[in-house]
Amino acid sequence: MDAALEWRGGAADGREVVERPFVVRHGSSDVPGVLWEPAGGAPGGPAGPLVLLGHGASGSAREGYIVALARRLVRARGWHAAAIDGPVHGDRPRAHQDPTAAFLAFGQAWAHDASLTDRMVDDWRATVDALVGAGVAGGGRIGYWGLSMGTIFGVPLVAADDRIGAAVLGLMGVTGPSRERIEADAPRVRCPVLFLMQGDDELFTRDVVLGLFDALGSTDKRLHLHPGGHASVPAEEFQASERFLAEHLEGAGTGS
Amino acid sequence: MDAALEWRGGAADGREVVERPFVVRHGSSDVPGVLWEPAGGAPGGPAGPLVLLGHGASGSAREGYIVALARRLVRARGWHAAAIDGPVHGDRPRAHQDPTAAFLAFGQAWAHDASLTDRMVDDWRATVDALVGAGVAGGGRIGYWGLSMGTIFGVPLVAADDRIGAAVLGLMGVTGPSRERIEADAPRVRCPVLFLMQGDDELFTRDVVLGLFDALGSTDKRLHLHPGGHASVPAEEFQASERFLAEHLEGAGTGS
Repeated sequence: MDAALEWRGGAADGREVVERPFVVRHGSSDVPGVLWEPAGGAPGGPAGPLVLLGHGASGSAREGYIVALARRLVRARGWHAAAIDGPVHGDRPRAHQDPTAAFLAFGQAWAHDASLTDRMVDDWRATVDALVGAGVAGGGRIGYWGLSMGTIFGVPLVAADDRIGAAVLGLMGVTGPSRERIEADAPRVRCPVLFLMQGDDELFTRDVVLGLFDALGSTDKRLHLHPGGHASVPAEEFQASERFLAEHLEGAGTGS
Repeated sequence: MDAALEWRGGAADGREVVERPFVVRHGSSDVPGVLWEPAGGAPGGPAGPLVLLGHGASGSAREGYIVALARRLVRARGWHAAAIDGPVHGDRPRAHQDPTAAFLAFGQAWAHDASLTDRMVDDWRATVDALVGAGVAGGGRIGYWGLSMGTIFGVPLVAADDRIGAAVLGLMGVTGPSRERIEADAPRVRCPVLFLMQGDDELFTRDVVLGLFDALGSTDKRLHLHPGGHASVPAEEFQASERFLAEHLEGAGTGS
């Protein structure tokens, strides 16, 4: 994929994490995103893994939990993390700043434009091309982390791009406007997966969520379920995400 | 509870774990069990936590995965671990040595003797009294780990004994001959729980297993689900068990 990467500044924030906004241009698309990286490069060697972070509906690449997870991966592991804004989200052209209106606008776009998923997968792949071209993810070890809307796009992305060696997915089921696409792509996901589920998810029933977990083609997969609503994923699972990605991208031991 | 503890030998096995068979006498019961402890006592201080290990049907206190987990807790953490034989299992009076016959004999006893659960809970509590009296679990930090039959007895035990501060349960649902007992006791379990579930469990349906997880009174609980049958719990969950118990019994950090 032919993609141009343009940096939009970037500064250390005093805690050894540099945040670098960027735009990836490919075809007629301008994809706004953010790269988080260790100040002064990865300690003691070549660049570590790159983790792609897919935000949820109504959020953005600068969503609080996305930034927190990115900073955690950079500070604790010395890796790179990157997020791009989803369709009609963040710095993309959109009609609404209000989160609820943005959520509904995504629902509309998702329901009425089947090419939305293809374009977001293309945007992600162009971003990976550009970042790898810029020397990020030197070892080619790439992970994906995305829940809810981050799984709506994440399943097709991980199915399509075998550079991605481990994925954290969840808060989504075999349902919605792109149900057939998810159903077709889920068995094509082959990398190790950590799948997160909330026991009192007000958006998706247990059966459809378990159905997506079951449908994933990965033989190495596990599901972690907690009580609570869609947005109440506990801190424990961000720690588990980091540990899971480390085990599969770094080959770190699984011991305590 | 008035319980007498009689040691039945014990020797270091060359890897810093001492295995000490014992019998606890209380009332008219002789309860055979095994204590695993660090050679020379816990390093650098008073005794660490004690973890009670409840084996599954057809097994015993010397079941392979029970011994492996006990040794792991002693070697990696410097804790104590203890297991006792279940009713009609191990060194208890029983008619069958063959695992399948033993499994069926337990099913018979479970179906026809409602007091089985009460007696096993009493056996466990007498064992805890005796071990604490012998200086084990100096800090009073006690955990429980038991799947399948270990949960059939574990739920009533943890509900009844508030000395138990964290529990790993699973591979069981609200079902079977003691269904009403489990249903009544589950809401009385209040300590943090890690609950294990197998996605292709040939003994219990997903609904009854999720139903037991839901029914637990603990607000701090999580369920880990893996593909595979009843007996295929992966090594990852033994590591997760150790980490979970450490976080709740030692106050160890939850970070990586």
